[in-house]
Amino acid sequence: MHFNPSQTLSDIAKLVNAEYDGDPNFPITGINEIHRVENGDVTFVDHPKYYDKALKSNASTIIINKKLNRPNGKALIYSDDPFRDFVKIIKKFKPFEPSSSMISPTAEVGEGTIIQPGVFIGNNVKIGKNCLIHANASIYDHSVIGDNVIIHSGAVIGSDGFYFKRRPEYQDKLESGGLVIIEDNVEIGACCTIDRGVTGNTVIGWGTKMDNHIHVGHDTLIGKNCLFAAQVGIAGCVIIEDDVILWGQVGVQKDLTIGKGAVVLGQSGIAKSLKGGIAYFGSPVQEARQKMKEIAALKNLPDMFKKLR
Amino acid sequence: MHFNPSQTLSDIAKLVNAEYDGDPNFPITGINEIHRVENGDVTFVDHPKYYDKALKSNASTIIINKKLNRPNGKALIYSDDPFRDFVKIIKKFKPFEPSSSMISPTAEVGEGTIIQPGVFIGNNVKIGKNCLIHANASIYDHSVIGDNVIIHSGAVIGSDGFYFKRRPEYQDKLESGGLVIIEDNVEIGACCTIDRGVTGNTVIGWGTKMDNHIHVGHDTLIGKNCLFAAQVGIAGCVIIEDDVILWGQVGVQKDLTIGKGAVVLGQSGIAKSLKGGIAYFGSPVQEARQKMKEIAALKNLPDMFKKLR
Amino acid sequence: MHFNPSQTLSDIAKLVNAEYDGDPNFPITGINEIHRVENGDVTFVDHPKYYDKALKSNASTIIINKKLNRPNGKALIYSDDPFRDFVKIIKKFKPFEPSSSMISPTAEVGEGTIIQPGVFIGNNVKIGKNCLIHANASIYDHSVIGDNVIIHSGAVIGSDGFYFKRRPEYQDKLESGGLVIIEDNVEIGACCTIDRGVTGNTVIGWGTKMDNHIHVGHDTLIGKNCLFAAQVGIAGCVIIEDDVILWGQVGVQKDLTIGKGAVVLGQSGIAKSLKGGIAYFGSPVQEARQKMKEIAALKNLPDMFKKLR
Repeated sequence: MHFNPSQTLSDIAKLVNAEYDGDPNFPITGINEIHRVENGDVTFVDHPKYYDKALKSNASTIIINKKLNRPNGKALIYSDDPFRDFVKIIKKFKPFEPSSSMISPTAEVGEGTIIQPGVFIGNNVKIGKNCLIHANASIYDHSVIGDNVIIHSGAVIGSDGFYFKRRPEYQDKLESGGLVIIEDNVEIGACCTIDRGVTGNTVIGWGTKMDNHIHVGHDTLIGKNCLFAAQVGIAGCVIIEDDVILWGQVGVQKDLTIGKGAVVLGQSGIAKSLKGGIAYFGSPVQEARQKMKEIAALKNLPDMFKKLR
Repeated sequence: MHFNPSQTLSDIAKLVNAEYDGDPNFPITGINEIHRVENGDVTFVDHPKYYDKALKSNASTIIINKKLNRPNGKALIYSDDPFRDFVKIIKKFKPFEPSSSMISPTAEVGEGTIIQPGVFIGNNVKIGKNCLIHANASIYDHSVIGDNVIIHSGAVIGSDGFYFKRRPEYQDKLESGGLVIIEDNVEIGACCTIDRGVTGNTVIGWGTKMDNHIHVGHDTLIGKNCLFAAQVGIAGCVIIEDDVILWGQVGVQKDLTIGKGAVVLGQSGIAKSLKGGIAYFGSPVQEARQKMKEIAALKNLPDMFKKLR
Repeated sequence: MHFNPSQTLSDIAKLVNAEYDGDPNFPITGINEIHRVENGDVTFVDHPKYYDKALKSNASTIIINKKLNRPNGKALIYSDDPFRDFVKIIKKFKPFEPSSSMISPTAEVGEGTIIQPGVFIGNNVKIGKNCLIHANASIYDHSVIGDNVIIHSGAVIGSDGFYFKRRPEYQDKLESGGLVIIEDNVEIGACCTIDRGVTGNTVIGWGTKMDNHIHVGHDTLIGKNCLFAAQVGIAGCVIIEDDVILWGQVGVQKDLTIGKGAVVLGQSGIAKSLKGGIAYFGSPVQEARQKMKEIAALKNLPDMFKKLR
């Protein structure tokens, strides 16, 4: 999420009422959580385990709950609760604005695009040319949709990321300030849900086709010409490269990469990054050939136990 | 489901045109199916296997298809088809009423609550303060929603329980007369579905957060501060205690209990009650540590078979 | 998909600008893809592996990318790209028509049927008597719904089939020209999606009951009085006979048959046809009794490895 206009270190520190270490005029051009941080961004860290990762990341400014040595060329903001202050910044720059009509007057809709009845289009949404948005789909604020995109009924584009910090008494929500970008020629099936990035973008790449009931988590980046069958679930901060095929009900855990052209058979569960160009199966997933051998062996196991006894 | 005003044994017996055993003025204060029955309720039983359970339950009145000895302090209604008569009572006291507008004039909506366009709110729904109901969500009649609740687009609150009795020629539906109660600070993801109780309540406890595409069955009771990832499916009559975490695509069978603080890894299938405070994995589920040992052993199995031969 | 009025070989060849082999007046009464083709239909084939199957199918006319001997009583249309020309025919005879109101003026709704607010009903939809369509459901053009049908909120009836041909540069979509037929006394749960046939029909048989979040793919035929629990996913071109029970989160691959009265336990994955009257479990699925033996054996495997060492 970029700030427009750009902010300074003293602006942001003042907003969260915190001390800082750095030039007051040090520029802060945006905000991102640690997996998607870019140069110029402010990010946050509140666990010693991740201090080093945050300080060495692309972030230029880090909100942190310990006074450490400031790395060269970076700025620090000291907070007793970096998560709370990070949320405060997101809320300030991306506040929720209620809509009073099904299609916001600030939405832009390209030539030749058909919007069926009952579709909700939020504030500042951009939709390209020659799209077809079927009845009762919902598109949250700030979503960006390319040309020739088909979105089926009941689909939800831009719902909040699922990201909570456990407090002693409750689950504290990281507000989502990012957005969804759907590139040209994508098809989104009925009742799919694409969460927006918490600070970055969730991207569905050129020509990717999704069947029904698919979930895509916040900040996940999906490549071109992928094919996902029904009821696939993909967590947040995942990278799926081009030409990947996921068959029905596959589950993908957060923060991993699936290489170009990988094919994952139905109901598989992916907990680690996968190399491209290979077929996989199982929960947890393995190379399909290896998994098939295990399945064959398991079939013989009851008999073998009998013999061994 | 409570009767308001309270009924008598003779009232209810007359409604279903049946004989009864007990004081005609014996009070019947509500109706519930056997898993959720309370003192004062009428329930039903039609299979000899469950006669004893029903007669010893908290129910004060039992609709039954055999003349048995009436337990002390209880009443019996004799029916050739207790299921049919039970449905008749529910339909009488909780009839479906069509809506003619997106927000029923009988709905109560608290101060500060934002209802986005395209939201349906049925008759007698109560929504608390400072909630945010996103576009195209649907809330059925009689649902009760607390304060600071977020419901995302496409979510459905209060759909009918999935409960059928097989007849020789068809599947006979148990009408749902219960409701959904969502406590304060809950978040319900996009395209989630929460079925109402068939006679009791389905409850989502304080501060629980649900990702997208989650299904919660009828009469299920969910505790406080739980976290359910996308595409979790929970059957009816389940009890989930506080602080339980279910990761993506976990499935939970009906009529069991998951103890406080249990953590269940993605794609697990739960068919028995689970103790709290432990991590689980697998379908069928086991303690995660034990399951991981099995997975490791299975990987070595094809080689072992070779050696044994 | 039937043509009304019937077409001739020369009509269709002219539409796709192709040479043909056969009587110019040879009748073409409809169009179907290979799994659902009927006498009088035109179909297509573009891979040598399937030439023989297509030529021996019920299709009367075959669009093909090789000049082969024409079988007796059939006609051939020669195309450098049969898929492209097949799509062209579907688009010509079943073009998408935008709707300008939530309930199309061309829709027919039977007596006693209740349509709740926010429901979308497309062009030429037919709905029978005494149905209840809950708020925010979406029913695409040409769907046919019987009497006494209940459709819950968020359900989508008639979305496009998921059927793509990989081109070097993109995934090419097979347009869906078929429809959905829902027979009498069916119940469709909240957020279910029933895709229409690509050329034939997707049929949900008499009295079948579906829980929430169920996906049914294109051209799938489901029998009478089936019971599907939540989050079941069924691919395209599947045949499910009467009285089949699928428990929660079961996945069914395309182009197979599940026999009458089969019961499949939760989270199972079905990749081959199953005989009726038997209980199944596992992913990939096996007879439940055999699978339970494997699960028991697997539990003992880590200990056995210890002993063998």
